[in-house]
Amino acid sequence: MKNILDHIHSPSDLRALTQEDLPHLAKELRNFIINIVATKEGHLGASLGVVELTIALHYVFHTPEDLLVWDVGHQAYGHKILTGRRTNFHTNRQRGGISGFPKRDESDYDTFGVGHSSTSISAALGMAIASQLKGEDKHHVAIIGDASIASGMAFEGLNHAGVTDANLLVILNDNAIGIDPSVGALKQYLTNVKKGTEKQDNIFEALNFDYTGPIDGHDLDAIISELTRLKSVKGPKFLHVITTKGKGLKQAEENQVTYHAPGKFDSLTGELIAKSASSLTKFQDVFGLTLVELAEQNPKIVGITPAMPTGSSLKYMMDQMPDRAFDVGIAEQHAVTLSAGMATQGMMVFCNIYSTFLQRAYDQVIHDVALQNLPVIFCLDRAGLVGEDGATHHGVFDLAYLRCIPNLIIMAPRNECELRNIMYTAQLGLEHPIAIRYPRGYGSVADWKQPFQKLVIGKGEVLKEGKDIAILTVGFIAENAKEAIQKVSNAQEIAHYDMCFIKPLDEVLLHDIFKTFKYIITIEDGTVKGGFGSAVLEFAAEHDYQLPIKVLGIPDAFIEQGTVKQLQELSHVDANSISNTLETALLQIKNS
Amino acid sequence: MKNILDHIHSPSDLRALTQEDLPHLAKELRNFIINIVATKEGHLGASLGVVELTIALHYVFHTPEDLLVWDVGHQAYGHKILTGRRTNFHTNRQRGGISGFPKRDESDYDTFGVGHSSTSISAALGMAIASQLKGEDKHHVAIIGDASIASGMAFEGLNHAGVTDANLLVILNDNAIGIDPSVGALKQYLTNVKKGTEKQDNIFEALNFDYTGPIDGHDLDAIISELTRLKSVKGPKFLHVITTKGKGLKQAEENQVTYHAPGKFDSLTGELIAKSASSLTKFQDVFGLTLVELAEQNPKIVGITPAMPTGSSLKYMMDQMPDRAFDVGIAEQHAVTLSAGMATQGMMVFCNIYSTFLQRAYDQVIHDVALQNLPVIFCLDRAGLVGEDGATHHGVFDLAYLRCIPNLIIMAPRNECELRNIMYTAQLGLEHPIAIRYPRGYGSVADWKQPFQKLVIGKGEVLKEGKDIAILTVGFIAENAKEAIQKVSNAQEIAHYDMCFIKPLDEVLLHDIFKTFKYIITIEDGTVKGGFGSAVLEFAAEHDYQLPIKVLGIPDAFIEQGTVKQLQELSHVDANSISNTLETALLQIKNS
Repeated sequence: MKNILDHIHSPSDLRALTQEDLPHLAKELRNFIINIVATKEGHLGASLGVVELTIALHYVFHTPEDLLVWDVGHQAYGHKILTGRRTNFHTNRQRGGISGFPKRDESDYDTFGVGHSSTSISAALGMAIASQLKGEDKHHVAIIGDASIASGMAFEGLNHAGVTDANLLVILNDNAIGIDPSVGALKQYLTNVKKGTEKQDNIFEALNFDYTGPIDGHDLDAIISELTRLKSVKGPKFLHVITTKGKGLKQAEENQVTYHAPGKFDSLTGELIAKSASSLTKFQDVFGLTLVELAEQNPKIVGITPAMPTGSSLKYMMDQMPDRAFDVGIAEQHAVTLSAGMATQGMMVFCNIYSTFLQRAYDQVIHDVALQNLPVIFCLDRAGLVGEDGATHHGVFDLAYLRCIPNLIIMAPRNECELRNIMYTAQLGLEHPIAIRYPRGYGSVADWKQPFQKLVIGKGEVLKEGKDIAILTVGFIAENAKEAIQKVSNAQEIAHYDMCFIKPLDEVLLHDIFKTFKYIITIEDGTVKGGFGSAVLEFAAEHDYQLPIKVLGIPDAFIEQGTVKQLQELSHVDANSISNTLETALLQIKNS
Repeated sequence: MKNILDHIHSPSDLRALTQEDLPHLAKELRNFIINIVATKEGHLGASLGVVELTIALHYVFHTPEDLLVWDVGHQAYGHKILTGRRTNFHTNRQRGGISGFPKRDESDYDTFGVGHSSTSISAALGMAIASQLKGEDKHHVAIIGDASIASGMAFEGLNHAGVTDANLLVILNDNAIGIDPSVGALKQYLTNVKKGTEKQDNIFEALNFDYTGPIDGHDLDAIISELTRLKSVKGPKFLHVITTKGKGLKQAEENQVTYHAPGKFDSLTGELIAKSASSLTKFQDVFGLTLVELAEQNPKIVGITPAMPTGSSLKYMMDQMPDRAFDVGIAEQHAVTLSAGMATQGMMVFCNIYSTFLQRAYDQVIHDVALQNLPVIFCLDRAGLVGEDGATHHGVFDLAYLRCIPNLIIMAPRNECELRNIMYTAQLGLEHPIAIRYPRGYGSVADWKQPFQKLVIGKGEVLKEGKDIAILTVGFIAENAKEAIQKVSNAQEIAHYDMCFIKPLDEVLLHDIFKTFKYIITIEDGTVKGGFGSAVLEFAAEHDYQLPIKVLGIPDAFIEQGTVKQLQELSHVDANSISNTLETALLQIKNS
């Protein structure tokens, strides 16, 4: 059995192969991905689906001079392995290792950093226009999935590209699924095209693209032949390729949602390796289960997710109340304004969006929700540091970008019970929109399913009395603060307040704190620029309190991938760093 | 000659008319709009174009129970006049008067507040789904222009609506122009449809809408007949209506860009009434003219605007260098990522977006530009308070939402010369992206066209020496501070610094200031939550300076329409308010 993959150090090695060797290479590449991901974890299904397409692209095009832009990027493992990163692919998504997504710093073959979806057409078009202006004869290829092309941003790119003569090839990788199955009218249309029930040149030709397809994305000869032909076609071109997500691993093909990012599994059988059972529950499940509980009582409740039914656990409500829970696809802008429209008619909308993806709907939060003071309930999952997904996915900007918006309430539950209770409180009817932000992963309270309690909006809570130093936290990071306090020599000196609400601040409590203590420390898992700590500084300035205030949080830099614990250490918001800060502060007070 | 309009106090009066009366009413309504806008100013062309459509909608549908959502909203003057606001329509866009856009607070007929474009389909779909869930039999109509429907957000709305059975009618008001002529592949497609060269059911039927049209939007009988028919069609429907922007006023039809918002004009002849000539230049023209000057020298320079060639004055470059300046349509997301793509290939991209519209591309600024540290040059026009356009359009959030983004330089030129010089400096090549934000309207320096000077990034400037009190400003608001200082009794006590850069702050200068003065006042025309003042507070906390710091800026509330001067007074950042603050501070220092 020959071993081809081990001799591919760059795409020029690939291009030296005969076309007959490529199916074998595809097999090796697929096995390589399966073997590494089985033990190191990561995204599986998407990369397995584009093995042949990846080989064909690097075989036909002269990369890196010709420019490939992978949309979203979790399908780019094959691309990484073929472009010089085979030997360190086992460091994928680890701190100090390679990124799980294409990244310009990492390789000349990674032409554009990705992570969020639907950017590839715009980016590749920009490259293509630049090449034109520079008089360079290059090829520019955007590879985008059917879930991502349904996002508005992709449409904007197509709409512009169609009136240019830029040398742009858009490849639609149509596998009828994003992380969850694709939705929407465009998806239905594509399904009809595949079945041959629709005129094939419809939408994309109407947008002035030279359309071909659909072709079988696992047939190397067919793809190579078509890509070779398209190299000589001028202007914007569109190739429709049909693939199977998870291709080559039976379980991954059959359970595409589970095997999107399956965790550890047996590389031969595909069987998932059960994690040691946690007695704790993920925040997302507390959201999902609580929403069903509330919706059973309150008929006005509606749930909305842009393409994250599984990740947000809105799936529970979608399964039990399909007429009241909506997956609108990768369409954050639409999700927010749809929520606003529903809210005008008295519906109580829980709009669940990952913190990092709410950046996509920032204007809609301001202009459609907050300006009209519509009581939409935003649930922002994956707030704070998310770990291995890295810089593109950390939800660390939300406190800063939301805090300047008038009318908006911003709350960060410390634990599962607080999440439940703020959801309960919100659906009773607030005068304002609210953003509830909570982290990825597990909470801290095993018996979280307690009777609901109504919270007072804007009211903080003392977790521990003390003197001299007051720690002010918001959200789950309170756990680190608790642990830190236990580590310091004079724990009795230190008070700990959970402010609960970033906006409105509990000003009564703050006056009390500023009159009592000598030193304030704020801690958050959001940016120190403009976040919760800044809110406390603004309060102090407004009321002319002159105390030392130490603001801890995410520093003013993009944070790469790693475990959440590693990244907290890097940001000095882990328990050890906090306890060091406390010791320093205690010393400073003693010496003053 | 009968007078119908004076007897229309609400749409029920309209619906009591015979259909034969309606053309006469249309004439009166058109004249009414022309007469008021001629003297009071405002948006003209868009509302003239939909006079018949407006009458027909209220005639056929049972408003306000049936819900009309006007996209963008500057075409809704006829709607306002017919729905009880005729007698105070002369207060349009004035402080305390009615808004220039539909606004929920103002009328039950204004179902959704608008101002930014392309929100209507999502909002109306939300209403339609809510009606379904409540078991209500209502009609829901989104009226959207061809420039707005090409925006990604509108596509997201269509894509979702097409797989629902919601009772939604989307009316495409196709006049081939937004503020500037429409662009893009969809526009070409619509033009082909009108010419009959394209199969008419193409794109919108593919998205599962029941499509009819195109019909003549000035033919009342035709519209009424078609709307009446559509009332009984179930599910998502699409009506394509052809109108002429500015219809009924010759000059407005012939010069559609100028008569979008023409200022004062002769209501009979349509002739524009010349404004008293200013010796000053608008900031936008300083941008537009300087860009041409720079682009003539630097072949790497490219200009991009999302649908604002006239408003941003990128028009100058588009006229002189059409291959290097691009209007990409209402597509802010695409504009930013296109810029990023170009920047990867070494182009020096000036991406000009109104401050308020950059909210639409927030994620792209973070994820596609700043995270990759691509040196895109953002020029944010209409930053700060914009005046009569009101709450939807003020560019007051930018400092807060941009400041938390790593790698990004943020600069606010104080005057025309600084704008020129920072543009010059940026295109020489920075290591980072930069956002340059400047206001609507005229500058302060008549002879601004001086030789270029290279600025030092992150360097502030002393404008006036003093003792005790230091005023720190960024941007054009420096003028108010200067004036304020002249008003106070002890002007010699007060120093004035233009910090120029919001990020990075001039820390050397700040250390100097904090060591010298007893009282700091920061002034900005952005939100006090998280903006420039907060940056100064963060600096002070980090370095343990304990001084009184007074932060002046836009308060934590949405600011309605009015003149910029009125709104500055309201926000206490006008010269008088600042001088009052100064007097109070002087007294406080004296008494301490």
